[in-house]
Amino acid sequence: VPAVDYDKLRSALSENGRLITDLADYEAYTHDATADSGTPGAIVFASNANDVRATVLFCHKHNLPIVPRGAGTGLSGGCVPSEGALVLSTEALDEIEIMPEEKIAVCGPGVITRDLIDGAEAVGLTYAPDPASYTESTLGGNVAENAGGLRCVKYGVTRDYVIGLQAITADGCTLDTGWFTERPAFELGELLIGSEGTLAIITSIAVSLVEPSGRGTTILAAFGEPSDAARTVFALRRAGLVPTVMEFMDGDAIDCSNAYEPTEGLHKAAALLLFETDPHHHDMERLIEGICSDNHCTLLRTEPDPNRAEDLWRVRRNLSKAITDMAALRVSEDVAVPISRFADLVAFVDQMNHSSHYRINAFGHAGDGNLHVSFLSEHDTSRDRENIDSLVETLMRKTIELDGTLTGEHGIGLAKRRLLPLEFDPPTLQFMRHIKDAFDPTGIMNPDKIFPV
Amino acid sequence: VPAVDYDKLRSALSENGRLITDLADYEAYTHDATADSGTPGAIVFASNANDVRATVLFCHKHNLPIVPRGAGTGLSGGCVPSEGALVLSTEALDEIEIMPEEKIAVCGPGVITRDLIDGAEAVGLTYAPDPASYTESTLGGNVAENAGGLRCVKYGVTRDYVIGLQAITADGCTLDTGWFTERPAFELGELLIGSEGTLAIITSIAVSLVEPSGRGTTILAAFGEPSDAARTVFALRRAGLVPTVMEFMDGDAIDCSNAYEPTEGLHKAAALLLFETDPHHHDMERLIEGICSDNHCTLLRTEPDPNRAEDLWRVRRNLSKAITDMAALRVSEDVAVPISRFADLVAFVDQMNHSSHYRINAFGHAGDGNLHVSFLSEHDTSRDRENIDSLVETLMRKTIELDGTLTGEHGIGLAKRRLLPLEFDPPTLQFMRHIKDAFDPTGIMNPDKIFPV
Repeated sequence: VPAVDYDKLRSALSENGRLITDLADYEAYTHDATADSGTPGAIVFASNANDVRATVLFCHKHNLPIVPRGAGTGLSGGCVPSEGALVLSTEALDEIEIMPEEKIAVCGPGVITRDLIDGAEAVGLTYAPDPASYTESTLGGNVAENAGGLRCVKYGVTRDYVIGLQAITADGCTLDTGWFTERPAFELGELLIGSEGTLAIITSIAVSLVEPSGRGTTILAAFGEPSDAARTVFALRRAGLVPTVMEFMDGDAIDCSNAYEPTEGLHKAAALLLFETDPHHHDMERLIEGICSDNHCTLLRTEPDPNRAEDLWRVRRNLSKAITDMAALRVSEDVAVPISRFADLVAFVDQMNHSSHYRINAFGHAGDGNLHVSFLSEHDTSRDRENIDSLVETLMRKTIELDGTLTGEHGIGLAKRRLLPLEFDPPTLQFMRHIKDAFDPTGIMNPDKIFPV
Repeated sequence: VPAVDYDKLRSALSENGRLITDLADYEAYTHDATADSGTPGAIVFASNANDVRATVLFCHKHNLPIVPRGAGTGLSGGCVPSEGALVLSTEALDEIEIMPEEKIAVCGPGVITRDLIDGAEAVGLTYAPDPASYTESTLGGNVAENAGGLRCVKYGVTRDYVIGLQAITADGCTLDTGWFTERPAFELGELLIGSEGTLAIITSIAVSLVEPSGRGTTILAAFGEPSDAARTVFALRRAGLVPTVMEFMDGDAIDCSNAYEPTEGLHKAAALLLFETDPHHHDMERLIEGICSDNHCTLLRTEPDPNRAEDLWRVRRNLSKAITDMAALRVSEDVAVPISRFADLVAFVDQMNHSSHYRINAFGHAGDGNLHVSFLSEHDTSRDRENIDSLVETLMRKTIELDGTLTGEHGIGLAKRRLLPLEFDPPTLQFMRHIKDAFDPTGIMNPDKIFPV
């Protein structure tokens, strides 16, 4: 990237827009929640859509890569700067307008997911997707990566709630898909969801809100074999039961969590399932307990009170921190498979763990066939990284063989782009590239992401 | 279109594929359910995806327009042949594979919508979208036009159920979006839904199936003023009530239906609402009746028995036939507006009816803000068509002013392409064209549709 004179851009920004080139205090902007990082040439903190347009036009003119960024909680390197790129932060675009009668909220991309949920709850509604990082993550990032969440088994993912977008393209045009009704012709909004900033910069997001379903009963079931837990997931699905939450953890993940803070009755569990029942289905508790018993659960704890249920949730809530504390190097993947293949995937990870000298464990939103697989190493050497990369590829090949996907909810970003050809065949990838070229002919929009080099 | 020697294509088709150039017996293939028509050069009845590919490649080589066709029940001219075009019928691609455990059906585009519903019901599930023509329409046509249906207030439209597609592009490539899990990168499938055959020919469709909700109670409410009915729709929405069906008919539509076959108590109604309650919400019947009464309904009939409820449904079921019988020329539009603007739209149509010498009436899936407006003329002259075109444009301008859409569920096709710039601004339309060019650089894929000339 050549040296760039940013003064013209600085003067084009609005009063509250900021452009930073002295980056010493902005280390956080060199990375997301993965181990990848890059050094930007500058950071723009946009204060409105005009700042976004000015920035895009400047980058377009100077052929400068532009990397949009929300809260930086992403798990695939989607907002990791290309070397010398301009990082465009949309954190300050955080307005929320709620239309209770339409059950619609129109948000800036910088809105924190939890603030949207809180705003919706204040008018008796809720926003359903709840990515694990929802207290920090931005809605713009959720849309760019099509984030999922704990409740996705019942409520679906971000895509299912976005009803319209405004976005600024590489040549400074504003796309406006409308949002009050289903729209005809080509759904540009659906195309932008999950596109990780490679097509346009999202400046406004309309989402549908739903009636809150209330809290259900929490059920924790432990199993002596991971396959018993996986079979339980499938049996529940076959019985037509859709709990609000259905989380899976394997034995190694439980051990990690127990080492951090023990939970009674779990010291020898080989797997667990954690449910929250749908409160509108008054017989669900009994039915779930029955199916867990039929599949040889070794422990069953039920807690109708949401506050006391935190005791049961702790094993899951501590998990991510527990795993990260445990290793010098942690590589996290989030594959997903059809629910009928979930048991096969769980068995495969269990076998990988046993036959590898790295610690490999799995947990995830089982109701969606979603499995977060963590590869842990006591040392962080280039050899370790290479070995784990190779294990990751083995996992991905198996996942695709099981009709699954490389990423259930984290996106491709930098982390998985080399593997994308496993999931899509050459013609399908070629048409994705055609679309990329149609939106971004000079390749400035978050380059290096999604597509293999 | 130059004369084409079809022999090479004929010999490239599989044993059961057919190519017809003697079109005397194929008048039906010159039009859909609108008044538009065109004369094709040939019709190919594909028997599998290879026939589709051979046909596309032949058309690509000879720069011949290709117009895909399902059952021809469309209401926007989407499958009306361009002059001399090759019509590609996918009617014979009618295989259905149901995976009950995944709650997925994989269908050929020629599957009749009802056959899919029947197949799903045979394994205890259902397919939710039910366009009015579902006993004849094909799933491929439903996807191409993103069809809605009576139950869309509760269940959404076709887009909400399509989870993956295979499609053949202008250069003969097969796109495969996968379907068992949410997918990363660019959602080509979402782009193809509603694209009316202008990007690629769909050869396989995966849809999600749902648990059937069972039948609820039917409620018919009549009103002395259309505005009372429209306000009732909004009040129900505000109360968080989501019936399975919520249909609206204005006084003129009721008169048409009554003239065809009278329904007791409706001879002087200025509007009616027809509901089916959600059977899982046991208090919904009482709540709907209360809100109808609060809004001055003049008649309230409730029928819990689904068979006897047919008496109440008749007024709605007869309507389309009744209206068509009544006029030499009928132009039907299907606008939709945000639910809070529904009363404004109803009032506007009522006023148009009173101030025009054409008969103009309205009915529709009110829960979605969807309104079917029919313009009727006793004569079918070019002057009448021009006059009605101008009234349609007036309606469309008002609809867009109310944040609505030109088409709630019928698509743009030929019928509304001149109006598309009312709905999308120039940059957004320009990016749709970029995408069209990326998929179809030579412009052979259902040309003349969607985009204004």
